[in-house]
Amino acid sequence: MEKNIYVRDLCPGDTIRDVFLLAEAQRAQARNGPYWRLVLQDSSGRVDAMIWSPLSEHYDRLEPGMFAEVGGQVGSFKDKLQVKVEALALLNGESPDLGDFLPRSQTPPDELLEALEDLVLEHITHKPLKAFVRRVLKDDEIRPRLLNGMGAKVVHHAYVGGLLEHTLGVARLCMSSCDLYPRLDRQILLAGAIFHDLGKAWEMTGGPENGYTDAGQLLGHIELGLEILGPFFAKARDLEPELILHLKHLILSHHGEHEYGAPVRPKSAEAFVLHLADMMDSKLNIISGAVDQLEQTEGPAWTPYQRFLERAVFLPVPTPDTNNQRKSDSPENQCFLPLKG
Amino acid sequence: MEKNIYVRDLCPGDTIRDVFLLAEAQRAQARNGPYWRLVLQDSSGRVDAMIWSPLSEHYDRLEPGMFAEVGGQVGSFKDKLQVKVEALALLNGESPDLGDFLPRSQTPPDELLEALEDLVLEHITHKPLKAFVRRVLKDDEIRPRLLNGMGAKVVHHAYVGGLLEHTLGVARLCMSSCDLYPRLDRQILLAGAIFHDLGKAWEMTGGPENGYTDAGQLLGHIELGLEILGPFFAKARDLEPELILHLKHLILSHHGEHEYGAPVRPKSAEAFVLHLADMMDSKLNIISGAVDQLEQTEGPAWTPYQRFLERAVFLPVPTPDTNNQRKSDSPENQCFLPLKG
Amino acid sequence: MEKNIYVRDLCPGDTIRDVFLLAEAQRAQARNGPYWRLVLQDSSGRVDAMIWSPLSEHYDRLEPGMFAEVGGQVGSFKDKLQVKVEALALLNGESPDLGDFLPRSQTPPDELLEALEDLVLEHITHKPLKAFVRRVLKDDEIRPRLLNGMGAKVVHHAYVGGLLEHTLGVARLCMSSCDLYPRLDRQILLAGAIFHDLGKAWEMTGGPENGYTDAGQLLGHIELGLEILGPFFAKARDLEPELILHLKHLILSHHGEHEYGAPVRPKSAEAFVLHLADMMDSKLNIISGAVDQLEQTEGPAWTPYQRFLERAVFLPVPTPDTNNQRKSDSPENQCFLPLKG
Amino acid sequence: MEKNIYVRDLCPGDTIRDVFLLAEAQRAQARNGPYWRLVLQDSSGRVDAMIWSPLSEHYDRLEPGMFAEVGGQVGSFKDKLQVKVEALALLNGESPDLGDFLPRSQTPPDELLEALEDLVLEHITHKPLKAFVRRVLKDDEIRPRLLNGMGAKVVHHAYVGGLLEHTLGVARLCMSSCDLYPRLDRQILLAGAIFHDLGKAWEMTGGPENGYTDAGQLLGHIELGLEILGPFFAKARDLEPELILHLKHLILSHHGEHEYGAPVRPKSAEAFVLHLADMMDSKLNIISGAVDQLEQTEGPAWTPYQRFLERAVFLPVPTPDTNNQRKSDSPENQCFLPLKG
Amino acid sequence: MEKNIYVRDLCPGDTIRDVFLLAEAQRAQARNGPYWRLVLQDSSGRVDAMIWSPLSEHYDRLEPGMFAEVGGQVGSFKDKLQVKVEALALLNGESPDLGDFLPRSQTPPDELLEALEDLVLEHITHKPLKAFVRRVLKDDEIRPRLLNGMGAKVVHHAYVGGLLEHTLGVARLCMSSCDLYPRLDRQILLAGAIFHDLGKAWEMTGGPENGYTDAGQLLGHIELGLEILGPFFAKARDLEPELILHLKHLILSHHGEHEYGAPVRPKSAEAFVLHLADMMDSKLNIISGAVDQLEQTEGPAWTPYQRFLERAVFLPVPTPDTNNQRKSDSPENQCFLPLKG
Amino acid sequence: MEKNIYVRDLCPGDTIRDVFLLAEAQRAQARNGPYWRLVLQDSSGRVDAMIWSPLSEHYDRLEPGMFAEVGGQVGSFKDKLQVKVEALALLNGESPDLGDFLPRSQTPPDELLEALEDLVLEHITHKPLKAFVRRVLKDDEIRPRLLNGMGAKVVHHAYVGGLLEHTLGVARLCMSSCDLYPRLDRQILLAGAIFHDLGKAWEMTGGPENGYTDAGQLLGHIELGLEILGPFFAKARDLEPELILHLKHLILSHHGEHEYGAPVRPKSAEAFVLHLADMMDSKLNIISGAVDQLEQTEGPAWTPYQRFLERAVFLPVPTPDTNNQRKSDSPENQCFLPLKG
Repeated sequence: MEKNIYVRDLCPGDTIRDVFLLAEAQRAQARNGPYWRLVLQDSSGRVDAMIWSPLSEHYDRLEPGMFAEVGGQVGSFKDKLQVKVEALALLNGESPDLGDFLPRSQTPPDELLEALEDLVLEHITHKPLKAFVRRVLKDDEIRPRLLNGMGAKVVHHAYVGGLLEHTLGVARLCMSSCDLYPRLDRQILLAGAIFHDLGKAWEMTGGPENGYTDAGQLLGHIELGLEILGPFFAKARDLEPELILHLKHLILSHHGEHEYGAPVRPKSAEAFVLHLADMMDSKLNIISGAVDQLEQTEGPAWTPYQRFLERAVFLPVPTPDTNNQRKSDSPENQCFLPLKG
Repeated sequence: MEKNIYVRDLCPGDTIRDVFLLAEAQRAQARNGPYWRLVLQDSSGRVDAMIWSPLSEHYDRLEPGMFAEVGGQVGSFKDKLQVKVEALALLNGESPDLGDFLPRSQTPPDELLEALEDLVLEHITHKPLKAFVRRVLKDDEIRPRLLNGMGAKVVHHAYVGGLLEHTLGVARLCMSSCDLYPRLDRQILLAGAIFHDLGKAWEMTGGPENGYTDAGQLLGHIELGLEILGPFFAKARDLEPELILHLKHLILSHHGEHEYGAPVRPKSAEAFVLHLADMMDSKLNIISGAVDQLEQTEGPAWTPYQRFLERAVFLPVPTPDTNNQRKSDSPENQCFLPLKG
Repeated sequence: MEKNIYVRDLCPGDTIRDVFLLAEAQRAQARNGPYWRLVLQDSSGRVDAMIWSPLSEHYDRLEPGMFAEVGGQVGSFKDKLQVKVEALALLNGESPDLGDFLPRSQTPPDELLEALEDLVLEHITHKPLKAFVRRVLKDDEIRPRLLNGMGAKVVHHAYVGGLLEHTLGVARLCMSSCDLYPRLDRQILLAGAIFHDLGKAWEMTGGPENGYTDAGQLLGHIELGLEILGPFFAKARDLEPELILHLKHLILSHHGEHEYGAPVRPKSAEAFVLHLADMMDSKLNIISGAVDQLEQTEGPAWTPYQRFLERAVFLPVPTPDTNNQRKSDSPENQCFLPLKG
Repeated sequence: MEKNIYVRDLCPGDTIRDVFLLAEAQRAQARNGPYWRLVLQDSSGRVDAMIWSPLSEHYDRLEPGMFAEVGGQVGSFKDKLQVKVEALALLNGESPDLGDFLPRSQTPPDELLEALEDLVLEHITHKPLKAFVRRVLKDDEIRPRLLNGMGAKVVHHAYVGGLLEHTLGVARLCMSSCDLYPRLDRQILLAGAIFHDLGKAWEMTGGPENGYTDAGQLLGHIELGLEILGPFFAKARDLEPELILHLKHLILSHHGEHEYGAPVRPKSAEAFVLHLADMMDSKLNIISGAVDQLEQTEGPAWTPYQRFLERAVFLPVPTPDTNNQRKSDSPENQCFLPLKG
Repeated sequence: MEKNIYVRDLCPGDTIRDVFLLAEAQRAQARNGPYWRLVLQDSSGRVDAMIWSPLSEHYDRLEPGMFAEVGGQVGSFKDKLQVKVEALALLNGESPDLGDFLPRSQTPPDELLEALEDLVLEHITHKPLKAFVRRVLKDDEIRPRLLNGMGAKVVHHAYVGGLLEHTLGVARLCMSSCDLYPRLDRQILLAGAIFHDLGKAWEMTGGPENGYTDAGQLLGHIELGLEILGPFFAKARDLEPELILHLKHLILSHHGEHEYGAPVRPKSAEAFVLHLADMMDSKLNIISGAVDQLEQTEGPAWTPYQRFLERAVFLPVPTPDTNNQRKSDSPENQCFLPLKG
Repeated sequence: MEKNIYVRDLCPGDTIRDVFLLAEAQRAQARNGPYWRLVLQDSSGRVDAMIWSPLSEHYDRLEPGMFAEVGGQVGSFKDKLQVKVEALALLNGESPDLGDFLPRSQTPPDELLEALEDLVLEHITHKPLKAFVRRVLKDDEIRPRLLNGMGAKVVHHAYVGGLLEHTLGVARLCMSSCDLYPRLDRQILLAGAIFHDLGKAWEMTGGPENGYTDAGQLLGHIELGLEILGPFFAKARDLEPELILHLKHLILSHHGEHEYGAPVRPKSAEAFVLHLADMMDSKLNIISGAVDQLEQTEGPAWTPYQRFLERAVFLPVPTPDTNNQRKSDSPENQCFLPLKG
């Protein structure tokens, strides 16, 4: 079943009938019967929807993560669109294309992975290390998980490609740090950056509900990543044990401090750099997402309170840029995220 | 009086007579009289020295920071050089050239400052901001303090030019972050990087003893920096108040967290970047200094415990670099510190 | 338009028509239409109000901080007064007298400021310091902000005069500490007490919504206070630099610990005293406000949980006071707040 | 045996023979035999002393806390007085008057206790409470312990009367807080101030070595104080149980936070005041002691690092006081400690 | 009035009339009048109940902790039972048997207390200590409070017998630690385990509402326990003071760290063991309760987030036990709680 | 070369010649030449030794961890034995039996390991798990490392067998917790207890110097243990993946909190128990060692300050034990450590 109607295009007065992902579903009670408050989602966005009584009484269990074909009228309430549902049928058996329903990174995941592989070619000259990194990235079990990896967040914030986007951002920060501090070992640092969050692809289930796996909660993504790499280390017979030791240390210490869940703290210069690059890319990702949701695109403005940053973020008035006027109009400028080389 | 004999060149058996800075001076007691344990310093390094009784009894007050003409014999004790002092005369009145006695940054301070000014020309296009930054850097009172600024450490670790070296390192890290995250306002971030530690030039006395000033201890370098900039802000009438506000915020928040002495925490994307760049350059400086004092230049090796990092640092075995063999021989490779240009 | 009807005087059965400040305004949804739950405020207190459907549908945006002329019937619901709104018109353009709508300190702000100035006359004998303090307090821009300053809280807790009341409380505590510890420098300590929270008058917008200003959030009230004082320091040419340094230190360190946002910790005896006096007056203010909202005026009783104290507060049974019976009837006894000299 | 020679009066060249307390005693080793480094103490101060070989070999165990009759010559070493011991005999059996050997509060302990009792008469009007407080203070077991109580420190910092001095300081601070915040219950607060550290008189052994008792370490002074008061509470049949409850709470919570060892945190306004008054008097005591050991009596100057304050303390330049010139010459001005009435 | 109908036995369609405890009672507002949402409780469980308008308007004050005779129809809503109330009369004067309305420990409290007394007989051989412990446990005021003590929780989690169950669990853990570490003094440790939470029986009011007493909040259960024991210590003239001191220390230090409210930290081996046994039994109690509320009885499964553990708890797949098949079917296996010897 | 003379048997006046381990070696300086202060060690204890000038000048590098044949005279200094060295020859090439020179657990390591294996037989009935555990314990590389493992300490505190002693202590505590809380999965918990510190046998080098390995510092013993177990997990094809997951979780979480280096916190009941048992056995080990070094064997007494416990430990007066008099004489009573069977 092909999807034709996307949330982004809805207008008051539209009549709709198409498949959506239920992002939220809550039954509430009025005196004269229950009603359902839903949030419908597809890859283009989200919209509120209501099932009023008596239709509401036909539905016992509507739950986030379900797919449903929804028919209804688009109206508006308090300046926001709201769909009045007139018919709703859950999709059983049928498995819609997830890509139509989940948000995605702006750059397609395969391009992000390609960019990572280009970095390997550019920076890693030691053949055993290069072979090791490429073998992992090309592995049939690992590659698809990387391409679909969603970063460390719940469904309404995550997006397919998020894990690769973060990995690429950290890798690029590390490489430009090596340009500035030439004593750093850029080869092992790049390998560390590429694999530091590898375990996240197994820590979460992926898919619409994107919860944590049992293994994710019981072992954590650091241990999971090392377990995935284990057999590859065993096979990389010409990769020096000292380099394997350093690479493992980079992965184990990238959270920086015990209280952030690092079993060991950074002990080498490269481990410090990886930790700080991880911090910088994560925080800029959160800020970028928060700023994207502001109505105004130029400061001064404040985002809502960001729980993970424990503060609201300020979007300042930008310094006028005489030379680079066109730059501020280019689409890649809309994003804090790393540009492709 | 010209200095001819440098610590770096001493050999057992040498007879010396030249001026040195007393880096340490302690009187100890043996039964048959006191003796002095000194550390003599010049810009090339440090060496132990002893004044045995009865000569020792001629000296009542030898204190770190004094200059003295020292005559004696170079011997060795426990595999380290040790000077047996035969004559010592404190320099009164005469004021030796500090540059002969204090360690210095590898790159001369004026070249570091020039590199900073080049960054301004390259990245700041907004004329009022450019004029403001350049006016501060060229100020007659500020410029010499910047050129002699020593970083945040006690005499035996600090070096002339350290403040500029750190400032340049942070500025370059910020600029390469802007290459990767184009939404960042690189102009104001560069200004913030350049002035974030400006107050340090007033926080410490400079000179051989390099203690904290009263104002340094009572106000801190953040407030001192803002006070220095105050009159320049007042005069920069065409510099937009919103930019001044953001620039002040960058300086006030660069310690990142209240517990590190930041009166406000970073609220803008640029403020996060400045804080993390400051962290990265500081930590890599400490590691670089610790590694320089190891006898072996290649890993695996551990530095002594680094109090400010709260750990010993590991110098790992480097990944062999087939392509860039010559790079590893070049002198700038000996240092984690930022390369010029 | 003169205000005649005050919240404090409402009774069930009254018909009202007068201007009120909307302290809260929330639209809720019932099946058969939306309704508005309001809280109406004037300087005498607050009362709930409801706009039922269909009248409710006439109002798209009612927001806290708006002024409205409200007509309706006073009823009661669950033992609390509730106004059933029959007509509501927002005030545009017209600017009502804020003093009619915001809660106020018991003692009028100008008397509080006068009391502060009396303390200056009584305790500061050093002419340059006395001149400096008086000049700031009499400044045309500063004085009205001080008189309207509201303390560090959101609209429904703050009151006009709160900043001065706190300042006076801290100043008096400091002066009585000097009576007990005569080594303390009471003159500089009084100046520090008077100016320690000066920046708060710029940190918040004041007025009915009383939010934080951008500068308040980006610089904080400590830095704002120092910026306000800057030009006065510059002009006070006969005020000794050492005294200015100490006074700045008192302001910078009054939060006591880095984790409470102090850029420097107290280093002088006076700085310790100022910090502890600030703590005592703030906490007693919170307790006093919490106790005032209890129905019973004598213990034992517990206030609701106080978020800023992280506990509920106990109102104990008072010790019977044979001698001072009349005292307990006097009006100033109803308040923890400092009595006028 | 009457003591005639006091440390305060020693001059180089003196020959002495009198009893001293050994405040420190360490045996050190030189090649040709051991020597003892002693510190001799009496109520007027301390002086270094050496027992050189071969005399040193006669002494197997010299320990801090012992009393000894010492004969010798007063000399000087490194600008400090030093006694060369020529004869030393430990006092066995004989029990010298402790008052000759331990430092004491400036105001005699009995005057301090009298001042406390005056406060009771002045402020406590409720007869059952007044009777209770007076009965405890006059108890035959308690009174002498209070008079000799030394505060919470090791031998070389403590002084007889220190506990009472602190108690009086806290009590006065509490009473002047009540003048400013008339809602406070001054009667119970005074009782709480008087007894908050009562257990300290049992927590330490007193005497020259002044260590912690087993009970002091296993129960702490808060519990010890409550145990001492227990029987008095039981006998005070007309003292209202609610007042007893509040008084116990004041004692139990006076450390303010769990991490400072408070089993419960302050819950009443009076408990907050007692905690903050305790903080203020303790910190000002430490600062006062540190400043007293500076050579210069006027600022600017820095004390050595104060371990309990975790900082060095600044003695600022005082504000000139035109009116009160004589005050600065009066002896009570030499002290931060509370003046009598 | 005898209770016949228990919550556990209700089915949709039942008509009921019996007494229940109101565990929750909230009035909510619909447009056409208020309604009450209740939770009815007896010793067998809880059930939701609604009083719709206009019946709802007859009730002004329904509050948790009240007893009411309730008549109505049992229906179901959203898969849960719900009683539609048709009549409700509050019980005044009459005092129903609490045991019918509060949840209880699986093992009756008197058996738990007996088990404790058996431990005393088994392990304590020192007559004065044995006599002391038994005298406290048999005291007419203490015994009934112990039997009804509910542990440290609000009404809907606590159960009669909870305090004894915890006490017995800790005591058994301590005794088996003594089997493994024979140097431990098992007699005093058992006494400490038995009395460590004694004060909890006075810290809470017990009964249906089970709040904290004033004394509980102002003194805490550690101090309350010591006060209860005080007269027994005074009478136990042949019990050695050193043992009393150790026993008091065990009670005072059992929270382990100052930040958990311990006025002193554990100083003896026995005190460490008591603290850790207290931790283990408390945490296993919470986990046991959380697992009991899962629908599935075997893992893998996750409990909801446990606030006091700050995590969700995992119920793992159990290791198959070939030998002990029958054990896993026995009823005592359903519980983490200690088995009776 | 067989060792005949043991430290434990030395008496003043003895002439010795035998091999010792240098536990400490420091060169100090007297005016007339250097001397060496050594500590000689064998499995029976330690003794001070001095090499005076001019013999001292023959030795350039004496370092802890070296073996030397030492000749000399036993004397005494300050009530302690001290050897005056008359001849000293370092052992090169020859490799003495470590067991003669390192302190050992009271119970021989092979008996401790046997006791562990007995626990496996007793408690683990699930064949795949039993096979897995036994295979690891019998592995040719693992077994000898376990038998020589020294616990987590520097040379002068560690002893051969310490790792097994701790492992056995934790395992026994876990098993007796399972007796009390029958819902616990005793089989997997025992496996977790046995392997929780397995990595420690690779974290330290063992041998006389017993430092940390590079892998120990860069990966930590948790990760090292999991790496050792990895191939055994891979081979245990009939061991259920859910059990492997739980076992890994037990190992990963046994430090309990992130700040103690746990990459994940305990999530299952068994994980909580393992963590607390690890805490209890470690702390009782430290206390036991501290008490062993007291001169008096019965309380009351205080040990010196224990850095890892951050306190001195109290040895209380024991409760008299009428029934078990003989027990207190038995040798196993001298130790807090677990008794066999």
